[in-house]
Amino acid sequence: MAENENPIRFGILGCAEIARKVCRAIHLSPNATLVAIASRSIDKAKQFAARNKLSSGKVKLYGSYEELLDDPIVDAVYMPLPTTLHVKWGVMAAQKGKHLLLEKPTALDVNMFDEMFEACECNGVQFMDASMWYHHPRTAKMKEVMSNSELFGRVKSIHSSSSYCGTSQFLENDIRVKPDLDSLGALGDAGWYCIGAILWTMNQKLPTTVTALPTTQRNSSGVILSCSASLYWDEEQTIATFYCSFISHETMDLAVSGSNGSLHFEDFIIPYEENSAAFSFTSGAKFVDLHIGWNVKPKEVEVPTQLPQEAMMIQEFSRLVKGIRDVGVQPDTTWAQTSRTTQQVLDAVKISIDNGYKVVEM
Amino acid sequence: MAENENPIRFGILGCAEIARKVCRAIHLSPNATLVAIASRSIDKAKQFAARNKLSSGKVKLYGSYEELLDDPIVDAVYMPLPTTLHVKWGVMAAQKGKHLLLEKPTALDVNMFDEMFEACECNGVQFMDASMWYHHPRTAKMKEVMSNSELFGRVKSIHSSSSYCGTSQFLENDIRVKPDLDSLGALGDAGWYCIGAILWTMNQKLPTTVTALPTTQRNSSGVILSCSASLYWDEEQTIATFYCSFISHETMDLAVSGSNGSLHFEDFIIPYEENSAAFSFTSGAKFVDLHIGWNVKPKEVEVPTQLPQEAMMIQEFSRLVKGIRDVGVQPDTTWAQTSRTTQQVLDAVKISIDNGYKVVEM
Repeated sequence: MAENENPIRFGILGCAEIARKVCRAIHLSPNATLVAIASRSIDKAKQFAARNKLSSGKVKLYGSYEELLDDPIVDAVYMPLPTTLHVKWGVMAAQKGKHLLLEKPTALDVNMFDEMFEACECNGVQFMDASMWYHHPRTAKMKEVMSNSELFGRVKSIHSSSSYCGTSQFLENDIRVKPDLDSLGALGDAGWYCIGAILWTMNQKLPTTVTALPTTQRNSSGVILSCSASLYWDEEQTIATFYCSFISHETMDLAVSGSNGSLHFEDFIIPYEENSAAFSFTSGAKFVDLHIGWNVKPKEVEVPTQLPQEAMMIQEFSRLVKGIRDVGVQPDTTWAQTSRTTQQVLDAVKISIDNGYKVVEM
Repeated sequence: MAENENPIRFGILGCAEIARKVCRAIHLSPNATLVAIASRSIDKAKQFAARNKLSSGKVKLYGSYEELLDDPIVDAVYMPLPTTLHVKWGVMAAQKGKHLLLEKPTALDVNMFDEMFEACECNGVQFMDASMWYHHPRTAKMKEVMSNSELFGRVKSIHSSSSYCGTSQFLENDIRVKPDLDSLGALGDAGWYCIGAILWTMNQKLPTTVTALPTTQRNSSGVILSCSASLYWDEEQTIATFYCSFISHETMDLAVSGSNGSLHFEDFIIPYEENSAAFSFTSGAKFVDLHIGWNVKPKEVEVPTQLPQEAMMIQEFSRLVKGIRDVGVQPDTTWAQTSRTTQQVLDAVKISIDNGYKVVEM
C-alpha cells in the first residue's frame, strides 16, 4: 500500500485557538485527514467548523468529547485541552484505542504523565506531545552540526528563553493562568519549550541537579507568570539556564556553546517564516593578531522545509500510527520518553520554586 | 587651545600581548601620544618597541616600572600587569601623579580596588579600567534603544556569555591562570565582561543577590577555568545569568529581554569587524493569526565607527585627563564607579563559589 493511502483519521478534542493551527496542519499533511471535531457543546464545534471552513460532509461535529472517542472512524486524536483535563481524557482516549497527540505541558506532574502513558502502553496506542519544533528539518540539521565533535565538540553551556507579553486580560483570565486549568502557568507553557530545548541539546539525559532562580512572579491566583532555572550535568560539567515568561517580550532563544563551536537562534519554537528557517553557527573562532576582530564570522545555515513544522509533526505521528494500524508494529516510545524527561525536569523546577529555590537532585 | 593640541602623553607599564593593541590605539587616538614603555628588563622593552615599530627617538624605553613613573613627561599610564600587581603599581602611579588606565580585572577584591581608587582620589588623577566595548558607539546606540520605554520597556532577563578555548599550555601556564598572578582566572578575565555587560544593562545598579551556579572548573592550581552565576534584582524582579570560560568555544554573547523588546548580539567584547558593529533588535513581536511565523523579524542595527573601540577608549580617557591637566577640572569618577560595581559582583560570585554556591546578599 502506498505511504499516503488510507490516511490517519484525526479527531480534535477541544476547540482551543491552537487547534486551528493543527487543523490546518492535518490538511497539509499527506498521510492524515480530519474526520471529527468535538467540543463541550455542539454550538462551539459548529463555530469552529465554520471558522475553519470545515465541510460538514467530511468532518463530523460532536457536542461531547466522549462521543468522538466512541466513533470507530477516528484513528487518532489531537487533544489541546487544559492540562488539568489531560489525564482523564488522555487515559480515556487510550482505552478507546485512539492514538494520542497531546498538547504540552503533558501533565501537571510526572505521576499523572505516567498514568496516561501506561494507558497508552496497555492499549497499544502511539503517544506524542505536540511540541512542533522538534519536527522542523532545521532541528535535525542542528543536531547533525552539534554531533560533529570536530566542528562543535562537547556541550559546555546552554541558554534558552521563551516568553511573550500577555495582556492584563490574559494574565488573569486565560486558561493558561487559571489554577484549576493550567496551574503550571508560564513554566508549563513557555517553560516546556526551554526545558525541551535544553534536554534535546543534551540528548534527553536528565541533569544531575535542577535549581530554580529567585525570580518567580505569580498572578493573583498564585499561578507562575515568569520564572527561571539552572540545570547542571555533573559528569559533563555542563550548565544550562532558562527564562520563561508571560510578561516579557516575545523571545524563543536557544544558544549552545560547545568546546569547538557555538550555535544561536532566536526563533526556535516558531520560525520567523514558514518555508525556511535558519540558525547561526560558528566554529573555530579565535582571537586574531592584536585581538582585532574575529578570524571567522558566524555562518547562517538556512534550512528550507516543504511543509510547515506542525504538518511535519502530523506527518511523523501519522507515519507511526500507520505502522501500528496497518502493519502491526509496536508504538514508538521515543517521543513519550522525550515528553517524560521534560515533565520530570519541569516538576523539579516547580519543586525548587515551591521550596525557596533549593537544589533538587534528580 | 584646540582639542587635540598637546595630546596626553602615555606610558605603558608592562609589555603584555594586549599592550600591542593599546599601543596601536594610542597611535590612532587624536588626543594621545605614546612617550614611554617600561618592562622589568630593558631588553623586553626593546623587543616590544621593535615588534611594534616604535621609534626610539619618540618613545623612551625603561627597564623598570618605577623609572617610567618618575618621568615627568608621562601624563598617564596604561597598566596591563597581572592583577596581583595592580594595587602596588596602581597606588604608586597615582602617588606619582599619573592618570591610570588599568587592565581588568581591576583588583583581586573590592578592598584592594578601594585602596587603589583612594590613591587616585587623593592625588587627583583619573581612573578608568580598560574595558573597551563600553566605548564603541554601538554601546551608546543600544543604551538609547533600551532606554526607550515604548520600544523596549523594562528589563526582564539578561544572559551573557564570554568564553574562549585555551590550549592546554594556556590552561596551566598563562598569567591568567597562575594563582600568584591572576588568581581570579576565567572569572576575572572573561567573567569581568559578562558582569560588566549585565550591570551596564541595569545602569550599574547592584543586584540584590548573587548566586554562583554549580559548574566551576579549575586547573591543577585551583584557578577557575569556567564558572557561571545568576544575579537577581528584587525591586525590578529582573534575573541575569552568565557563563564565562577558558575551556569553551569563543563566545561574547549578550541577550536582553525587556517587556516590549529584545536585543541580541554575539560579539559584544570584540566586534567581528573594526569599522562597524551591529546588534539585533526586535520590538512589538506578537503571534500572528494561526501562530504561524512572526509579525516582525529582528532588525539588524549597524553602527559604524571611525575609530576602533580601543582608540575610542583612549580618546575618552585622554579627554578626561586633558580636562584635569589643562583646565583644572576634577577627575570623573563615573568610570571608577563602573569598575567598582563590577568588582563587587565579581567578589560576590567568588564568595558564592567558595561557599558551595550559597546565595550572597549584596
